[in-house]
Amino acid sequence: MALKPLNIGLVGYGFMGRTHTNGYKRVNDFFPELKHRPVLKAVCGRSPEKVQAFADQWQYESVESDWKALIARPDIDAIDICTPNNSHAEIAIAAAEAGKMILCEKPLALNPEEGERMCAAVEKAGVANTVWYNYRRVPAVTMAKQLIDEGKLGKIYHYRANFLQDWTINEDLPQGGEALWRLDAAAAGSGVTGDLLAHCIDTALWLNGSIKDVTAMTETFVKERMHTETGKKEKVTIDDACAFMCHFENGSLGLFESTRYARGHKALYTLEINGHDASIRWDLHDLHRLEYFDNSDEGRLRGWRSIHVSDHSGDQPYMDKWWVPGLQIGYEHTFVHQVADFISSIDNNTAMHPNFRDALETQQVCEAVLESAKVGTWKNV
Amino acid sequence: MALKPLNIGLVGYGFMGRTHTNGYKRVNDFFPELKHRPVLKAVCGRSPEKVQAFADQWQYESVESDWKALIARPDIDAIDICTPNNSHAEIAIAAAEAGKMILCEKPLALNPEEGERMCAAVEKAGVANTVWYNYRRVPAVTMAKQLIDEGKLGKIYHYRANFLQDWTINEDLPQGGEALWRLDAAAAGSGVTGDLLAHCIDTALWLNGSIKDVTAMTETFVKERMHTETGKKEKVTIDDACAFMCHFENGSLGLFESTRYARGHKALYTLEINGHDASIRWDLHDLHRLEYFDNSDEGRLRGWRSIHVSDHSGDQPYMDKWWVPGLQIGYEHTFVHQVADFISSIDNNTAMHPNFRDALETQQVCEAVLESAKVGTWKNV
Amino acid sequence: MALKPLNIGLVGYGFMGRTHTNGYKRVNDFFPELKHRPVLKAVCGRSPEKVQAFADQWQYESVESDWKALIARPDIDAIDICTPNNSHAEIAIAAAEAGKMILCEKPLALNPEEGERMCAAVEKAGVANTVWYNYRRVPAVTMAKQLIDEGKLGKIYHYRANFLQDWTINEDLPQGGEALWRLDAAAAGSGVTGDLLAHCIDTALWLNGSIKDVTAMTETFVKERMHTETGKKEKVTIDDACAFMCHFENGSLGLFESTRYARGHKALYTLEINGHDASIRWDLHDLHRLEYFDNSDEGRLRGWRSIHVSDHSGDQPYMDKWWVPGLQIGYEHTFVHQVADFISSIDNNTAMHPNFRDALETQQVCEAVLESAKVGTWKNV
Amino acid sequence: MALKPLNIGLVGYGFMGRTHTNGYKRVNDFFPELKHRPVLKAVCGRSPEKVQAFADQWQYESVESDWKALIARPDIDAIDICTPNNSHAEIAIAAAEAGKMILCEKPLALNPEEGERMCAAVEKAGVANTVWYNYRRVPAVTMAKQLIDEGKLGKIYHYRANFLQDWTINEDLPQGGEALWRLDAAAAGSGVTGDLLAHCIDTALWLNGSIKDVTAMTETFVKERMHTETGKKEKVTIDDACAFMCHFENGSLGLFESTRYARGHKALYTLEINGHDASIRWDLHDLHRLEYFDNSDEGRLRGWRSIHVSDHSGDQPYMDKWWVPGLQIGYEHTFVHQVADFISSIDNNTAMHPNFRDALETQQVCEAVLESAKVGTWKNV
Repeated sequence: MALKPLNIGLVGYGFMGRTHTNGYKRVNDFFPELKHRPVLKAVCGRSPEKVQAFADQWQYESVESDWKALIARPDIDAIDICTPNNSHAEIAIAAAEAGKMILCEKPLALNPEEGERMCAAVEKAGVANTVWYNYRRVPAVTMAKQLIDEGKLGKIYHYRANFLQDWTINEDLPQGGEALWRLDAAAAGSGVTGDLLAHCIDTALWLNGSIKDVTAMTETFVKERMHTETGKKEKVTIDDACAFMCHFENGSLGLFESTRYARGHKALYTLEINGHDASIRWDLHDLHRLEYFDNSDEGRLRGWRSIHVSDHSGDQPYMDKWWVPGLQIGYEHTFVHQVADFISSIDNNTAMHPNFRDALETQQVCEAVLESAKVGTWKNV
Repeated sequence: MALKPLNIGLVGYGFMGRTHTNGYKRVNDFFPELKHRPVLKAVCGRSPEKVQAFADQWQYESVESDWKALIARPDIDAIDICTPNNSHAEIAIAAAEAGKMILCEKPLALNPEEGERMCAAVEKAGVANTVWYNYRRVPAVTMAKQLIDEGKLGKIYHYRANFLQDWTINEDLPQGGEALWRLDAAAAGSGVTGDLLAHCIDTALWLNGSIKDVTAMTETFVKERMHTETGKKEKVTIDDACAFMCHFENGSLGLFESTRYARGHKALYTLEINGHDASIRWDLHDLHRLEYFDNSDEGRLRGWRSIHVSDHSGDQPYMDKWWVPGLQIGYEHTFVHQVADFISSIDNNTAMHPNFRDALETQQVCEAVLESAKVGTWKNV
Repeated sequence: MALKPLNIGLVGYGFMGRTHTNGYKRVNDFFPELKHRPVLKAVCGRSPEKVQAFADQWQYESVESDWKALIARPDIDAIDICTPNNSHAEIAIAAAEAGKMILCEKPLALNPEEGERMCAAVEKAGVANTVWYNYRRVPAVTMAKQLIDEGKLGKIYHYRANFLQDWTINEDLPQGGEALWRLDAAAAGSGVTGDLLAHCIDTALWLNGSIKDVTAMTETFVKERMHTETGKKEKVTIDDACAFMCHFENGSLGLFESTRYARGHKALYTLEINGHDASIRWDLHDLHRLEYFDNSDEGRLRGWRSIHVSDHSGDQPYMDKWWVPGLQIGYEHTFVHQVADFISSIDNNTAMHPNFRDALETQQVCEAVLESAKVGTWKNV
Repeated sequence: MALKPLNIGLVGYGFMGRTHTNGYKRVNDFFPELKHRPVLKAVCGRSPEKVQAFADQWQYESVESDWKALIARPDIDAIDICTPNNSHAEIAIAAAEAGKMILCEKPLALNPEEGERMCAAVEKAGVANTVWYNYRRVPAVTMAKQLIDEGKLGKIYHYRANFLQDWTINEDLPQGGEALWRLDAAAAGSGVTGDLLAHCIDTALWLNGSIKDVTAMTETFVKERMHTETGKKEKVTIDDACAFMCHFENGSLGLFESTRYARGHKALYTLEINGHDASIRWDLHDLHRLEYFDNSDEGRLRGWRSIHVSDHSGDQPYMDKWWVPGLQIGYEHTFVHQVADFISSIDNNTAMHPNFRDALETQQVCEAVLESAKVGTWKNV
C-alpha cells in the first residue's frame, strides 16, 4: 500500500535542522506500519547559498528565503520551526493561521505570554502540533515513564536532574550571531534555563507531574564577551548557570541544575527518581542504559541494575524497531521516534505529546525559575 | 555538483540486509564530500513475498529471485552479499567474473580454500571488494588503531578479546532454517568461531598484526536440537563456545574467547591491549567509549580514562560527521562508515580495507583454531 | 624508643565509640613514627552491663558510669565524646575546664551558641581539640585538597555534594531512645542537616572556603512515629530531607542535598568540584577511587580518570602506611588517620584540624540552612 | 569470660607478616564470640635489627633468629609461615612434628611432591592447618560461594579469571633478594603461576569444583635482569605471564590468565561465572561489590546488579561484624576473617578450609599448567 505524503517545510537549517531532517528521512525504514511518509518539500533560510547547500546535502526539493512564502505554499503540510527562540511565536502563529501542522523546536517561546498565544493559535486552528522535547523518547526514559505509571516506584520522594556542559568556559568565545545566538538573551530568551533546564523540566513534568513552587539561583560567570554582530565587548545577558529547588504537586522534592561551566561534562543530562519501592537513574552520556533499584529484590542481592535497553523482543520501548540485543542506538534516534509518534497520531487521530500546551507548562516553570532567581524568594508556578 | 550513482544489488535481506541498506541510504547525508550516491537498484531473495516486502519498506527499485539474474543485470554496479556463509563463494566469484564490485558479509567463506578462490577471482577481475567486518569502524576502535600506529602504546605485551552472548542457552531453541542457519554448520561453516571470533580476529589482525600459532578449545553444550528443516532432533554440529591462546608475530600473547552461553551478555565484544607505555580497552555494549591508561600521566593521578568518543572537532575519527560532544552514536553507524570509506576508495582510487585478502587471513586463523581444537595441539596459522 | 601513653577516656560506646576505639588501637601499628600510644583507660556509659561488655570486647582498662567522674580522673589525658549531640557542650566544657584534650564527635553542638561556648572553653583552657569529621581523611578526599591547593583545578565554578540514605523509609520505624536518638530533634538538634549535611559542609569549607549565604528547603515525609521512650505515636521533629543552594566566598555556586528517603542508597556521600582547568568527583560507596578530569590532556584523549587511590609510593596521601597498589582500604581507616594526625599534632605541637572552631563554622552554616528553610528566603551565614 | 590464649610464632616479617599480624590483633574486637585470643608471642627472622623493629612496631613479645628455635619453644601454639616459598616445606614439616598448628602462606610449596609431604606431616601429627588463600574470605566472594551452593546459578558453563599486574614492566627492576625473591624461581618456584594464578585456582576449585585437564602458555618478556644477590645480569627464570584453558569436572570451560605486564592494572583479580540461570562477576579493585545477573528477573528489567556488600543485617557474609550499610571494608579484612574462622574451627573442633590438602590440589593444577606450557599439549591434573 502506498504511503501518503506528509510534506515538510523546514524553517532553519542549523544543528536542529539536521536532527529533524534525519528523523523524517529514516522513519519509514524502521516504522513500516506508518501510513504517511514525510517528503522534504522545502527548506527555508536567509542565506541563499547556505540554504541551497543544506537542501542539496539533505535532498530537499526546493528552498525558500522567506518563511512567510513557505507558509503560503499550498504544497506544504507541516511547518518545522528550527529558528532561534525569538522567532518561534511569530512563525508558529502564522503557520497555525494557515492551517499547517507545526513541529516547533524547544523551548516553545521566549516567555509564557508568547507561549499562551501560540497555544491559542494552534488550538483555534485545530492543527496538529508538537514541540521537540526529544529526550522523552530515549527508550530508557520512555521505559522509566512506563515503570512509574505502573506504580513500580511507589510514592515518589525525590526527583533530581541536571544538565551539565562545559563549552562556554573559554572567555574568548564570542556571543551572538548565527552560531552563538544561544549566548544572546535577545535571541534565546535566557541561557541555560531555556536551553538545558527546559529539557529537564519537560521530562520531570511528564514523569512526576506538575511543579507547585520553585526557588532559584542563577549566575553569569563571564560578564562580558565580544558580540559577533557588533564586534564589540558587550555585557553577557544570559544565565551561565541556573539551579532551583521545588515542590512537586505529588509531595516530592525536586532539585535541578544546569550549567555550561562544568568542566569535563559535554551534555550530561542526568535524572534520578527515588520512590518508596524503587528508584531509577539515567544519563544522556550512556543513554542506552537505565539504572534501576528494586527494593523487592532479595535483601542480600539488592543492587542497582544496569539495564542495557537494546532488547528487540518488544518489552523495551521502540527497541523492536532497531537491531538485536546488545546493539545500542544513539542520540539521533530520539528524533526518529518523535517523527514516528507524530505520524502515528495523525494516522490514528490520537493525541500527540508534548504538544504546545505541554511545552507551555515547561515555559511557565522556566519563568518562575528566572523570576525567583531575580527576587530571591519562592515563586509559585 | 550531481553525485554519480553507485547501483547496488543486494542478495539476502535478513538482519545484515537491513544494516547495509541503512548504510547506503544515510551515507550522503553525513558524508557530503563523497562523489557517488548509492542507489538501491535491486534486492534479491528466494521468497517473492518477503523480498517484495523488504523492497517496499526500504525503497529498492526492483526485486530479483535469482542472484544469477541480478549479477547479469548491466544496471548493477556492486553486489552486496548477505546470504548464509555457504553461498558466499559461488556468488562472489560469479560477481567478480561479471566485473561487479563486491561487498561481502563476513566471514568471507566456509574455509580458507574457498576464500583463496574468492580472492583470486576479485584480484583477477580487478574489482573493488570489501568484507563487512564493521567493528573496525566504531570510532573508538578506529582511534585505538591510530594510537597504536602513533606508538602511544609502545611494545605490546597482551591482546585479549572476547565476544559473549547468551541467546542459545535455551535447549528448546531449534537449529537451521532461514532464521537460525547460524546454528547449522552446513550453512554457517562453524558456530561462534566464524560468527563471533571472526570479528575479534579481524580487529586483532588490524590492530596488532599477524598471528603465528594458536591452541584452541571448543565445546558444544547442547548436543541435540530440533532442526527447522527436518522437524527432527538432530546432532548440533556447531561450536557453542570457542577459546584460544596465541602468539602474535610482534611477540605479544593473545587470549580469545567467544560463546553463546554467557548468561547476562547480549553482544559483549570486548578487547584490551596492554602496551609498555599505555593500554586501551573497549566494549561493544558502550561502544561510544574508549578506556585509556597512559603511564606517562603523573603518578598519583594515573587512572583509566573513560573517553566519550563524541567530539565533533575532527580529532576523534568519524565524529565530525555526526552531532556535538556528548551525544553518542550507535551500532548502525559502523556500516555507514564502511560505505563511506568504500565510496571514498572508489572516488579516489585508493585501497579499501578489509578487502577479501584481509578477510582471508582471518579465515586462516579461524581454520587453525578449529583444527587445533580438534587435535588438541598448537597449530601454525 | 618507648612511646608515651595518651590515656583515653571514652564517653559513649555506640557506633562511633567503636570506630574511634578501633582508631586508637590500630594507629601505632601503621604509623610507627608517632611518639604517643593511645591507652584505652576507661569507657563511660549509663548502663553498667553494656559498658562493661564494651570494655571487655575492646579491652578498656576500666569503666565509669558518670562522665563527671571520668573527667575528674587524673589518669585520663583526653576525653572522647561519642554521646548524643545534646550532651556535647556540657561534657566538652567540663573537660576543657579540667584541662583535658577533647576529641568530640560531630556535629559540634546543637546550635552555634553552644558551639561558641565550647570554642571559648577549649581556647581558654588551651587544650588540644578536634571534631570527628572523618571524611576529610579519606585518602582520595585529602588528595582532592592537595590538587585544589596546588591550583590544578583553577578558578572554581561549581561545588555539589549530597548524602543519600534510605534507612528511614519504613513508617514503622520508631524514633528516639538509645538506638534511634538521631530521629529525635531533642537529642540530635536536627535530622539529616546535622547528621549528614554537616559532613558535606565540613568537607566543602575545607576544600572550597567559606559560604556566604544559603537558601534551603527541608521536608519531613513521615509526620508521626512511635517514640521509643513514651511508647506513643508522636510528631516527628527532625528534617527527613534537606537541600540548599549557596554562594561561596570564592564566587562559586554550591548545591547540597541530603535525605534518608533515597531508595537504593545506603551512605552515598558524593562530591564534585568543577574548576576552570580540571574537575574532581568522589563518592563514599567507592571511597578508594577519585575521578579526575584534566582539561590539559590531549583533546581526543580527554576523559574522566578513575584513580585507584592505593599507591604506597608516598604520592597518594596516607597510602604509604597501608598495603600495595591495587589493594583498597575502607571506611574505618579514616578514623585511624584522624588519630594519627591528632597525635602528630601533639608530638610536634602543631595545629590540628578540624578543631572546634572549624566545626563551629559548619554549625553556623547548618543554622543558616535550617533558618532559611523555615522562612523561605536567603540567609547570610 | 576470659579468652584462652593462642600463642603465635611468626616466621618472616615481610608484606604477609604484616597482613597476618594485623589479623591476629584485630580479630577479637570484631568477633567477640571467639574463645581464643591470638597472642603475639614471637617473630622470627634472620636480620636481628629488622626483626626487632618489626616486633617493636607490632608489639611481639620476643624475637628469634632461628625458626628451629621458635618451633622448639613450648610457649608457641601455632607457627605462621611467611617466608619465601622454598622454605615452606621444611618449616611446616618440622612444625607439624613438633605438634604445632600451622598457618602457611600460599602457595603451599614449590611443587606437588613437597606439598604431598607437608600434607602427610600435618595429617600424621593431627595439627590444625590452613593456607592463606585469603580471597575466599572477601565477603563478596564468600557470598558467591553461597549463591552457587544454593543453586542460584544453575548448571555452570563458563568460569574465567585473571590476575593482572604491571609492576615488573620496567627492565631495570632487579630480581632476587629479600624484596624481590618473587622474581627468582629458585626462591619462588615459579613466577605469576604460583604467585597470582594460584589465588585464581584456589577460588575456582572452591567455587566450581575440580579441574580435569589444562593447556597452558607461559612467557618471560624480559629475559635478563640484574640479580640482587650476585650483582650481575642473570637469566630470568620465572614466568612473567601465564594463561591456560581447562575443563572442569562439572563440564564447564575455564579460562585463566595472569601477568605482571598488563599496564594499568595493579592487582586486578577478576572472576566471572556464567550459569544457566544467573551469572556473577567480581574484581579485587572494588572488592566490596558483587555483580549479579539473574535471568529470572522480569525481561525488560534484567541487568547486572552492582551489589554493595556492606549490609550489617547478617545476610551478607561477615558484614554483621563491621560497620553499617554503605561503608566498605578493604583488603586486610580478608585476613581477619581467616583468623576468625581458624579460631572458630579450633573453638568448635570443626574443619578449616583451605587446609594443606586443599592447597595441594591448587599446587597440582599449577604443576599441570607449567608442564603443559613446557610441552605444548593438554595435561591431566
